[in-house]
Amino acid sequence: MDTTGWNLKPMDAEQLRENAHKMVDFIADYYKTIESFPVLSQVEPGYLRNLLPDSAPNRPESLQTVLNDIQAKILPGVTHWQSPNFFAYYPSNSSVAGFLGEMLSAGLSIVGFSWITSPAATELEMIVLDWLAKLLKLPDEFLSSGQGGGVIQGTASEAVLVVLLAARDNVLRKVGNNGLEKLVVYASNQTHSALQKACQIGGIHPENCRLLKTDSSTNYSLSPDALNDAISHDLAVGLIPFFLCATVGTTSSTAVDPLLVLGEIAKNNGIWFHVDAAYAGSACICPEYRHYINGVEGADSFNMNAHKWFLTNFDCSLLWVKDKNALIQSLSTNPEFLKNKASQANMVVDYKDWQIPLGRRFRSLKLWMVLRLYGLENLQCYIRNHIKLAKLFEELVAEDPRFEVVTPRIFSLVCFRLLPPNNKGEKGNELNRDLLDIVNSTGKIFMSHTVLSGKYILRFAVGAPLTEERHVNEAWELIQDKASPLLKIS
Amino acid sequence: MDTTGWNLKPMDAEQLRENAHKMVDFIADYYKTIESFPVLSQVEPGYLRNLLPDSAPNRPESLQTVLNDIQAKILPGVTHWQSPNFFAYYPSNSSVAGFLGEMLSAGLSIVGFSWITSPAATELEMIVLDWLAKLLKLPDEFLSSGQGGGVIQGTASEAVLVVLLAARDNVLRKVGNNGLEKLVVYASNQTHSALQKACQIGGIHPENCRLLKTDSSTNYSLSPDALNDAISHDLAVGLIPFFLCATVGTTSSTAVDPLLVLGEIAKNNGIWFHVDAAYAGSACICPEYRHYINGVEGADSFNMNAHKWFLTNFDCSLLWVKDKNALIQSLSTNPEFLKNKASQANMVVDYKDWQIPLGRRFRSLKLWMVLRLYGLENLQCYIRNHIKLAKLFEELVAEDPRFEVVTPRIFSLVCFRLLPPNNKGEKGNELNRDLLDIVNSTGKIFMSHTVLSGKYILRFAVGAPLTEERHVNEAWELIQDKASPLLKIS
Repeated sequence: MDTTGWNLKPMDAEQLRENAHKMVDFIADYYKTIESFPVLSQVEPGYLRNLLPDSAPNRPESLQTVLNDIQAKILPGVTHWQSPNFFAYYPSNSSVAGFLGEMLSAGLSIVGFSWITSPAATELEMIVLDWLAKLLKLPDEFLSSGQGGGVIQGTASEAVLVVLLAARDNVLRKVGNNGLEKLVVYASNQTHSALQKACQIGGIHPENCRLLKTDSSTNYSLSPDALNDAISHDLAVGLIPFFLCATVGTTSSTAVDPLLVLGEIAKNNGIWFHVDAAYAGSACICPEYRHYINGVEGADSFNMNAHKWFLTNFDCSLLWVKDKNALIQSLSTNPEFLKNKASQANMVVDYKDWQIPLGRRFRSLKLWMVLRLYGLENLQCYIRNHIKLAKLFEELVAEDPRFEVVTPRIFSLVCFRLLPPNNKGEKGNELNRDLLDIVNSTGKIFMSHTVLSGKYILRFAVGAPLTEERHVNEAWELIQDKASPLLKIS
Repeated sequence: MDTTGWNLKPMDAEQLRENAHKMVDFIADYYKTIESFPVLSQVEPGYLRNLLPDSAPNRPESLQTVLNDIQAKILPGVTHWQSPNFFAYYPSNSSVAGFLGEMLSAGLSIVGFSWITSPAATELEMIVLDWLAKLLKLPDEFLSSGQGGGVIQGTASEAVLVVLLAARDNVLRKVGNNGLEKLVVYASNQTHSALQKACQIGGIHPENCRLLKTDSSTNYSLSPDALNDAISHDLAVGLIPFFLCATVGTTSSTAVDPLLVLGEIAKNNGIWFHVDAAYAGSACICPEYRHYINGVEGADSFNMNAHKWFLTNFDCSLLWVKDKNALIQSLSTNPEFLKNKASQANMVVDYKDWQIPLGRRFRSLKLWMVLRLYGLENLQCYIRNHIKLAKLFEELVAEDPRFEVVTPRIFSLVCFRLLPPNNKGEKGNELNRDLLDIVNSTGKIFMSHTVLSGKYILRFAVGAPLTEERHVNEAWELIQDKASPLLKIS
């Protein structure tokens, strides 16, 4: 190929070296200055359209031109998830080890759909998921040595979808395809919206998704009595209960569903029992938090996002199942053009049959590097530090009578709100919405919100790798500062 | 946090810089030596289990230790998709620009599910998908300025799934949920297995997936007559035709379905018309190949994988739709904890509602960098060069009377086979299977296969960024060398 006119060849080891070194410095400088950016991007919708051309260039541009544009045009539109002042949603950790793993994965650039397309990708994933299952003390049935095993999905949404499909098809094989409209799913109304989306995708009748009411009496965890009642009622009218999703660490308030008793109910009714510990699962590598997943022994599947609070860059959602064949029966394809001896002889795992997409990246590398470059003890220390900082924040809130901590803090999330003055309860939601807007629009910190029992609640989620005690203290001072004038207006 | 005992802190700009520079050199050295590895990994199933410990380490290890393990234990289990001697499946391009984009995406490490979580991620994706729609001369209805728009999915499997769901729910809103079992899907039997998987996921009745027979008379493209007959028959028995998937560049043999007439049939029957150009779409940036997607004007959705043959590292599957609301109605969720002013005011695109997962990486960066660092002219040159090399291979095969080219080469894939000697036709499949095994087990090149009309066919897909004329010539010599003794045995 004539490469006159190419600044960069499509691939060239030395050009990769030279330019990637520049990119490393750009990224390292970004982290060095990360506190100087507004955490929540302050741009207006449509801002970028005016800054970029209408069409792709005919001729190549230099990396420096592009880097200048990133600095001037892209970074102002970035919400800085890795900022130490990011307290919104749940964290999505980047780390040096996770970043190195992403680099290597992009460097090798393999597509590991079947074992043969890179045996190391499949085998390292099996091994590392076994490692993590052991750190979490999951039951042996989740290990790859038996009928179960672990797999890396992109997100918890995909994890719950694939197990829902496996459970659905397990039942439909028994009752026939026209049983679909009778299938019923159970979860608390605090369950992540991913479950409803999975039901919609899988063709579960919209009226058969039971999101059972929770309240402060159970700290927003699912009541086994409510579950039993719902199942009994559905059975009585000829419906087929088939799937229960429990959560350890709900998105709104880190509620923990009672796995042990829920698992028994599921077992007694022949229901697939999925446990979503997307956020809080990471904490369970510490012996003192492991009890929150007691009862996981009764689960059919368990999910934890290493990309949330486990220093493994997004995406890396870990799913374990006890019966891999249920997944495979739902999701396998076997076109001629992918057939090969190892697969045909059933000697290997082909992860394409455990997931929605066909192609998949070599994501186990980053998790493996996180585990090796940090080690269990440091990872435990990392989790404990964030929980300690959240506890500090909780204490600061509790000390100020103008605020209340709304639900007991369990992990690294504090749910709190500004109390409406003079018992004007009806103004509480507006007040807190205003406070959140004002605080976030400073760009100094970014928090998010939820609603519990009709109350608008502020969520302060500690978990960014760079967050230190001073950031928590300064965040609290900012919140207090912005609250004072609001209270005067009210 | 006390970081005694940490070699690496969770995140530290200078440690990131130092270690990422090392990783750059490791990856650049990999590309420098990539031809020295067997293209297809030669390890046995289970090889890695014996080389790694049973559990994660308690204490941190050094990056050098890990890199040594990657060299000694992981690389032997890698199938080298980026090797210039990789001719299997379809290519999955890595490039310097694509790699830099992946690095930056991992470096910023944002999660762009809603506009507010990083406005630049959503807006750059909209802009770059518009750029590419213009390069492909897609109809204006696919641009983001109207009711349509583009979105980056992980894979073509997810692309076909989300549009199938959108089409399904469009119909079910009219006929009610119990119409599900009447819905019928149409495609040729050369369509990627992803379609069947999407049907299975979406609860389409397994008997209602019409994979219409093709043969050499149409070069394995879908016959409009066969489609019309199938639709008429289904309508007559009260079924509901709702989805047609056409392919431009099938996986087995790059067959091109006749979009123009298929689109008319779809329109006349109120069927959603999806065009899968996952592989061949890239070629359509060249004016001389654009005609293969003539008729895309009649499509409701169009898909091309930039991660295949467009220098954009996996994953980056581009999907355009004319009616974004159809996607959103199927896939949106609106939990309180994600609500924000911009979304509630409907001022922005929230890509979470266009895809299966909630979270998403900043994938538009790599596509943007590919377009800018190479430019349209060089990208066209890149495509043309691979097609030229495939043409060379086709000519080499045609010159050797022991072989035949099985279907006409259109893009950069050559389908060929070794002819069974003495007209022993029944031995042809065994012969070619053996030849493929022997060639691939040398580690010098990696090809794959398919079956067309009962014949076992070898697939030689040119498209790795490093492939040059010499690699094609050497591959052909190797194939000839290994064929000779096989023919003597037969």
